[in-house]
Amino acid sequence: MARVSQEHLDARRRQILDGAALCFARNGFHATSMQDVLKEADLSAGAVYRYFSGKEELIGAIVAEVLGTVREVYEQAARQTPPPLPDVLIPDVLARMRELRPGLLDDGQWMFPRLMIQVWSEATRNAELAAQLREGFRLVREAWGKVVDGYREAGLMPAGAEADADAMARVMIAVVQGYALQVALFGTESAASFEAMLRDGLRSLMSVQRGDQKVAQGN
Amino acid sequence: MARVSQEHLDARRRQILDGAALCFARNGFHATSMQDVLKEADLSAGAVYRYFSGKEELIGAIVAEVLGTVREVYEQAARQTPPPLPDVLIPDVLARMRELRPGLLDDGQWMFPRLMIQVWSEATRNAELAAQLREGFRLVREAWGKVVDGYREAGLMPAGAEADADAMARVMIAVVQGYALQVALFGTESAASFEAMLRDGLRSLMSVQRGDQKVAQGN
Repeated sequence: MARVSQEHLDARRRQILDGAALCFARNGFHATSMQDVLKEADLSAGAVYRYFSGKEELIGAIVAEVLGTVREVYEQAARQTPPPLPDVLIPDVLARMRELRPGLLDDGQWMFPRLMIQVWSEATRNAELAAQLREGFRLVREAWGKVVDGYREAGLMPAGAEADADAMARVMIAVVQGYALQVALFGTESAASFEAMLRDGLRSLMSVQRGDQKVAQGN
Repeated sequence: MARVSQEHLDARRRQILDGAALCFARNGFHATSMQDVLKEADLSAGAVYRYFSGKEELIGAIVAEVLGTVREVYEQAARQTPPPLPDVLIPDVLARMRELRPGLLDDGQWMFPRLMIQVWSEATRNAELAAQLREGFRLVREAWGKVVDGYREAGLMPAGAEADADAMARVMIAVVQGYALQVALFGTESAASFEAMLRDGLRSLMSVQRGDQKVAQGN
């Protein structure tokens, strides 16, 4: 048997995951058969089953990769002094998703947001997938907590403000989820305009001043 | 034929919509039959078909009601001087959803967030529903624009800041969508704790200061 390079194995795995992700994004998890995945990835059953036992394992691998990337973006951000502010960091999470999955294009449309909706919908019926999402969510919130520590150390949270890092993490993650949803349902002109709009929206939100801040600043 | 009061007609319509919403939330739109809806609402086919021609009309009515309520919350907020800040207003949107659909409980669990996921998933396959959501989304963004005008008039947006009301509206709507998603997937201890956490998260996010603001305040 010929020796197969790690590079080749990785590329093959990527090809299968991208094909499966496209199928799931288009038609949902239930309506997709392993036959559909083989056809989309342009591989034989033997080639695919060497890597993944079936649809469950495929969706698990796709979700693990996405959650791992989100977490990594936050971990990296936390190592900077000060960490990028939310209006920079959150669009960056989405941009990293695009880089991670360049193969996730269908007729030029980025299918990742649609894939997310299908994963959520499936998770309402699939306890194992829901548990995987819950654990990933917990780890992302933990990573975000380090970003908030970074803001605090850089004096970017007002003195005396008891920032609730976990509550804030939930809101930041909600923004990413809701924004991806809007792209999937309503489309967007381009990925760049989409990220710019997200940045402007967060910046505007962060610029709203409480009455007490207003007085303190003498405006 | 006996005269039937408007009150009775409204109550019957409510009963049907709540039954349908529970079925859709539990099993999704496709896996729900009109038989399931009749059984859940505890009504005869004749009683239900007098109001709705089928599943498509039911989901349309449910979505119209939800979008109308969200819009109304923003319209009301815009009439206050100043309008409630985002950390008060956004949890209020969710609280109003709970008041609007008290019947949407299944074993004590609030099923509305699950219903939202099913509606989104269906909209990726159903062009008419997607168009309805798009139009509702447009109207909600418009209503949000008036809230931002109110912040401006009250001097709660910093002078010179070109707040992008539409970009901000998208982010605020994303928070509601993403938060509902998290409740559906991960649950929450109680509705009250869920709204408090959303408020604390938004408040913390709004308290993050840009470097330039920090200097201006002399911190």
